[in-house]
Amino acid sequence: MNDMNKVGIIGWGITPFTKEDKRIETVLLDSTKELFKNNPEINQKDIDAVLVSTNHNSKYLSPILSEMAGIQPKIAHSIENLCNSGTNSIVSAYSYIASGLADMVLVTGAERYDSPGSILEWDNSRGEYKHPIFWASIFAKSYKREYSVSDDELAIVSVKNHKQAKDNPNALSNKTYTVDDVLKSKKLTDDIRLLDCSRPCTGSASIILGSEEKTKQYSKNPVWVNGIGQKTTSAGFTKNGSFSSMESTKRAGSMALKMANKKINDIDVAEIHDAFSVCEPIILESLGFSSEGKGMSMIKELHQTNNFKINPRGGLIGSGHPLGATGIAQTIEITQQLQSNADNRQVRGANVGLIHNMSAAATSSTVLVLEK
Amino acid sequence: MNDMNKVGIIGWGITPFTKEDKRIETVLLDSTKELFKNNPEINQKDIDAVLVSTNHNSKYLSPILSEMAGIQPKIAHSIENLCNSGTNSIVSAYSYIASGLADMVLVTGAERYDSPGSILEWDNSRGEYKHPIFWASIFAKSYKREYSVSDDELAIVSVKNHKQAKDNPNALSNKTYTVDDVLKSKKLTDDIRLLDCSRPCTGSASIILGSEEKTKQYSKNPVWVNGIGQKTTSAGFTKNGSFSSMESTKRAGSMALKMANKKINDIDVAEIHDAFSVCEPIILESLGFSSEGKGMSMIKELHQTNNFKINPRGGLIGSGHPLGATGIAQTIEITQQLQSNADNRQVRGANVGLIHNMSAAATSSTVLVLEK
Repeated sequence: MNDMNKVGIIGWGITPFTKEDKRIETVLLDSTKELFKNNPEINQKDIDAVLVSTNHNSKYLSPILSEMAGIQPKIAHSIENLCNSGTNSIVSAYSYIASGLADMVLVTGAERYDSPGSILEWDNSRGEYKHPIFWASIFAKSYKREYSVSDDELAIVSVKNHKQAKDNPNALSNKTYTVDDVLKSKKLTDDIRLLDCSRPCTGSASIILGSEEKTKQYSKNPVWVNGIGQKTTSAGFTKNGSFSSMESTKRAGSMALKMANKKINDIDVAEIHDAFSVCEPIILESLGFSSEGKGMSMIKELHQTNNFKINPRGGLIGSGHPLGATGIAQTIEITQQLQSNADNRQVRGANVGLIHNMSAAATSSTVLVLEK
Repeated sequence: MNDMNKVGIIGWGITPFTKEDKRIETVLLDSTKELFKNNPEINQKDIDAVLVSTNHNSKYLSPILSEMAGIQPKIAHSIENLCNSGTNSIVSAYSYIASGLADMVLVTGAERYDSPGSILEWDNSRGEYKHPIFWASIFAKSYKREYSVSDDELAIVSVKNHKQAKDNPNALSNKTYTVDDVLKSKKLTDDIRLLDCSRPCTGSASIILGSEEKTKQYSKNPVWVNGIGQKTTSAGFTKNGSFSSMESTKRAGSMALKMANKKINDIDVAEIHDAFSVCEPIILESLGFSSEGKGMSMIKELHQTNNFKINPRGGLIGSGHPLGATGIAQTIEITQQLQSNADNRQVRGANVGLIHNMSAAATSSTVLVLEK
């Protein structure tokens, strides 16, 4: 990491996740306006790059957002990598700053509830099973069998994350559920019920990253991106090797911790990609928060002690999952946690945070380590 | 530009531009395979990032290409910014390397002849006039009036670039035309005829960029990316201020030359974005190759003396314009020129080259300066 400049988070804006039917341009602008409202000292002229994270099919969205927001950036384009688009865009912003090509980068992620990225249309090996529910179902069956986990136990992920989302004013869900509610919700496959799933929604999240100098200039309470790990193992989930662990998450996690010079035990708070209930214990294990097969024990204990360490904003299950915005919303949550600004969701003494995001059955993963 | 690492071009692969009806995944793989064939010493394991440049609506194309090509990258995503996508992706690759996040980055651009980016669907101020021909028509009318340029003169751009494309084995066109042919080709608007237009096509181009160390290790004939300039002024071309010059091109050009510590007279060979005949003189003027209103004089002289300095591969008019691949194909041409490897298209003594790419009526531009 020689010669690298430090990169920090200067400001953010986020709007409620909903099922609203709005033009993608409007959704993008919503959180960008919120960002400028939250950070009145930032001038549009200071922004060198505008990166748009989305799965929407519309073209040229970065120049369109820039024009609507009064920005004339140098660097401008859209970034797409399914669910992982938001964290990919944050890593790209990091590289523009650390390379010296930009001092301040706006990253805005937005999606509509009917995003085309919600269906995986390319993997012909799946036959008709193009909806992510089918890979989740295979992971659930495999994980439950391998570690003797029951449906009742897995349901706790959904119960916990819905409970935590109640304290997130931007979450799609504001209801709490019991284990019984989860088990009695509509059965979608043998192993997945409706309340086990995150839901696509309309939502937007914006963040500005900056060089060390700009971050110190604009933020009284800076948060730094100190660790980055990314790995793509394949595009088709059947090549993962295991359906009860996630290889790309293991690789991205250890890479990010190494870069930040941290151990997993140093992490005080984390947002992880619980697209489906079963993802949460598997990810905890693949990141090393717990040993293999013990992810559910950790989740149960956190839930019983009302500890918001994992997915304080309610994760994807509680918050909703506007694909291109998710990674940015996760990063905003960890930023708020490290700034002791997370209201009722606050994890006390949070100094080091982690973001885990992934795409398409963990065929690719991104992990970020943030510090204050 | 303190602390920046040097970034070089290690290898490339390109396939003929056609009107073929192939899956986008196949088109992407075509030039990637060609790249590995041209550079057998490069191992897939050495590639840290795979960036896909395209306007195609398919998602997750970078992991899909990676899997097909036997690569397991860290960084993987698609980049879209209309016609400018390819050069945006090269700049992104540069930043990943200069920041230290990657040592070797594969950038593959691909498009099908029916790319959705060929129609500008978002600019409602244009009413029904969504095809780029309409902005080109306004530029042509304005430029001809302002500088007393005739249709006969503008036609020389198409004659010259088709002539040069004859020596490009990958060009869509292999015919030569006279001024009369251009003037008698189908009249699309008052000011634009069919042979004034570049044509969307199916095509793919791949390039590998590397750190200084990797470039020296793998390339006997390294070419360096020494200058980068980018600017977005708006998303709607009616806000350009002038229809006979290109503000974003002026800004990107001077930025790139400054970073490379060069003057425009130092440039020996250039690929510029002649989406339509009228673009070529305007771009030459906006980059400073000629004074305002004198672009056509320069083009006429180059044509008469059979000097391939501008658009040696035939530009977009001669080569065809597979949107996401164009910026990468331009960069490959300049790389070949600087490596004295451009066969009949070779500009003698080419040491410094320039690439100019733009999107949507020059509402955004990218300029690169390469040196051997």
